[in-house]
Amino acid sequence: MYKVGISIGDSNGIGPEILLKSHHIIKQYCKPFYCVHKEFLKKLAEILKLDFPKDAEFIDIDAKIPSLNIAQISADSGLYSYQSFLKACKLAEEKQVDFITTLPIHKFAWKKANIDFIGHTEVLRNRYKKEGIMMLGCEEMFVALFSDHIPLKMVSKLIQKDKIKQFLFNLYLCIKEKNIAVLGLNPHCGDNGLIGTEDFIIQDAIKEINTELKEEIFKGPISADSAFTPMQRKKYKYYIAFYHDIGLATLKALYFAQSINVTLNIPILRTSVDHGVGYDIAYKNLADIQSYINAILLGIKFKGKQ
Amino acid sequence: MYKVGISIGDSNGIGPEILLKSHHIIKQYCKPFYCVHKEFLKKLAEILKLDFPKDAEFIDIDAKIPSLNIAQISADSGLYSYQSFLKACKLAEEKQVDFITTLPIHKFAWKKANIDFIGHTEVLRNRYKKEGIMMLGCEEMFVALFSDHIPLKMVSKLIQKDKIKQFLFNLYLCIKEKNIAVLGLNPHCGDNGLIGTEDFIIQDAIKEINTELKEEIFKGPISADSAFTPMQRKKYKYYIAFYHDIGLATLKALYFAQSINVTLNIPILRTSVDHGVGYDIAYKNLADIQSYINAILLGIKFKGKQ
Repeated sequence: MYKVGISIGDSNGIGPEILLKSHHIIKQYCKPFYCVHKEFLKKLAEILKLDFPKDAEFIDIDAKIPSLNIAQISADSGLYSYQSFLKACKLAEEKQVDFITTLPIHKFAWKKANIDFIGHTEVLRNRYKKEGIMMLGCEEMFVALFSDHIPLKMVSKLIQKDKIKQFLFNLYLCIKEKNIAVLGLNPHCGDNGLIGTEDFIIQDAIKEINTELKEEIFKGPISADSAFTPMQRKKYKYYIAFYHDIGLATLKALYFAQSINVTLNIPILRTSVDHGVGYDIAYKNLADIQSYINAILLGIKFKGKQ
Repeated sequence: MYKVGISIGDSNGIGPEILLKSHHIIKQYCKPFYCVHKEFLKKLAEILKLDFPKDAEFIDIDAKIPSLNIAQISADSGLYSYQSFLKACKLAEEKQVDFITTLPIHKFAWKKANIDFIGHTEVLRNRYKKEGIMMLGCEEMFVALFSDHIPLKMVSKLIQKDKIKQFLFNLYLCIKEKNIAVLGLNPHCGDNGLIGTEDFIIQDAIKEINTELKEEIFKGPISADSAFTPMQRKKYKYYIAFYHDIGLATLKALYFAQSINVTLNIPILRTSVDHGVGYDIAYKNLADIQSYINAILLGIKFKGKQ
């Protein structure tokens, strides 16, 4: 059974509730190590009127237990969630856990705590000095992002054959899948050069990497507007999107509640829920646990591929 | 009952089959004027073993009846489909019909026939010297495109407040809806300027046009990746996308078969099926009529709003 380091996320949001409500489910599939002070979680369980997981492992973290300010952006909960995350990373680096799963943090709480990263993925890229690959999805459909938090107008400049080949190769090593759809960049994949030329570069990159891999792993480019029709989704489960919104819009339209976020191509494996801190429903016993459960299950899946 | 001018599309594809199979349905809702030589359609009905619509009106067009070359790109069918379309336009201009519905043409057949337009929309823009608005969708969801067949890297340059305001105003006049979602351009709408600044311009345009209309008609910008979640789609039916793929990818994922294309903001009203000539299934009695029926029904709906 895999060991999983779990970071608590922002304690003023829905993270603790999700963690507590899901313990009896996830313990059937993995051994969780909760990166939170035991007495803090006990207190939160009492407030939430949820069972405290007596049979779990707790790992103290290097931060003072924050005060509870439900649905408030606070520096102390920001720092606590950051340190909980770092502790989970350390557990994975020291092989005390097989992978980590993160609950949502609030980026402005991090800012208040003077943490200079906008999110988990940026911390990971900085910590490991590697271009972590952000992939989102669920069993039915995954989308890996070639670029993520950059302005749309910058995307075209990143369309370079060697960069794309490297990305495709890295992704292949991480997921070891054999039928990956690569979206085009321009409308109708540029319509043979009439509407931009970047899709020729993408096409070349796909051809060359398939040749190098001696197998037609990557298919495309496929015009992004028609890549997700029901017919296409029967053919493909893994997609590569060249920019943030084009893959995620459809993913969230189809599989909002189920989707998770996974960071690949770094020394540890990290999965995450694909939702925020949910301040609007915090401490109301309304949080959906589906994304969290999937984050654990898909962590197990991708760990198995490594 | 509205009168509708119907162009035959490329006769080597699925257009004639769809027209013939649907006549007994659409005649319940409108009076069709088929822009095709009667004897030609009769011949095609015999080949397709489908009933010929004896009770319909036929309008001769200014082109020689083409030879039938099933699933072939031909100059004569290209020219015929173009002239059929022009005749439908003329009927609408002369108020002999209330709107037109077009069946799919093949752009390379047009090219072979030396027609210098890549599609219907471009002909309309040129003919009426107006920025026709391309909107796609079905009763459940519509997406209007601020830009369409241009390279992705050009989109950012078009994000200008006055252009956007004009577009929003024109669209409002055409559809007269009161709750229209405007997508953002950059990831997370630019995250307050961290990821590009175009979304500020979009925000200003929305604010100003709502003030001018004295009603909050337009909502947004809404981050494009989360604009189509099931929750959001309960709130919105009409969306504005700033570039081709972002709106259409999700539309086609959710409503591929039902969707249609409508050209607004020109002197005539035109609706169209949202699929191609289907050469792979031409003359095999396999064509789906749903998009065509919807094109007629939504033509009736939008005509009623004018």
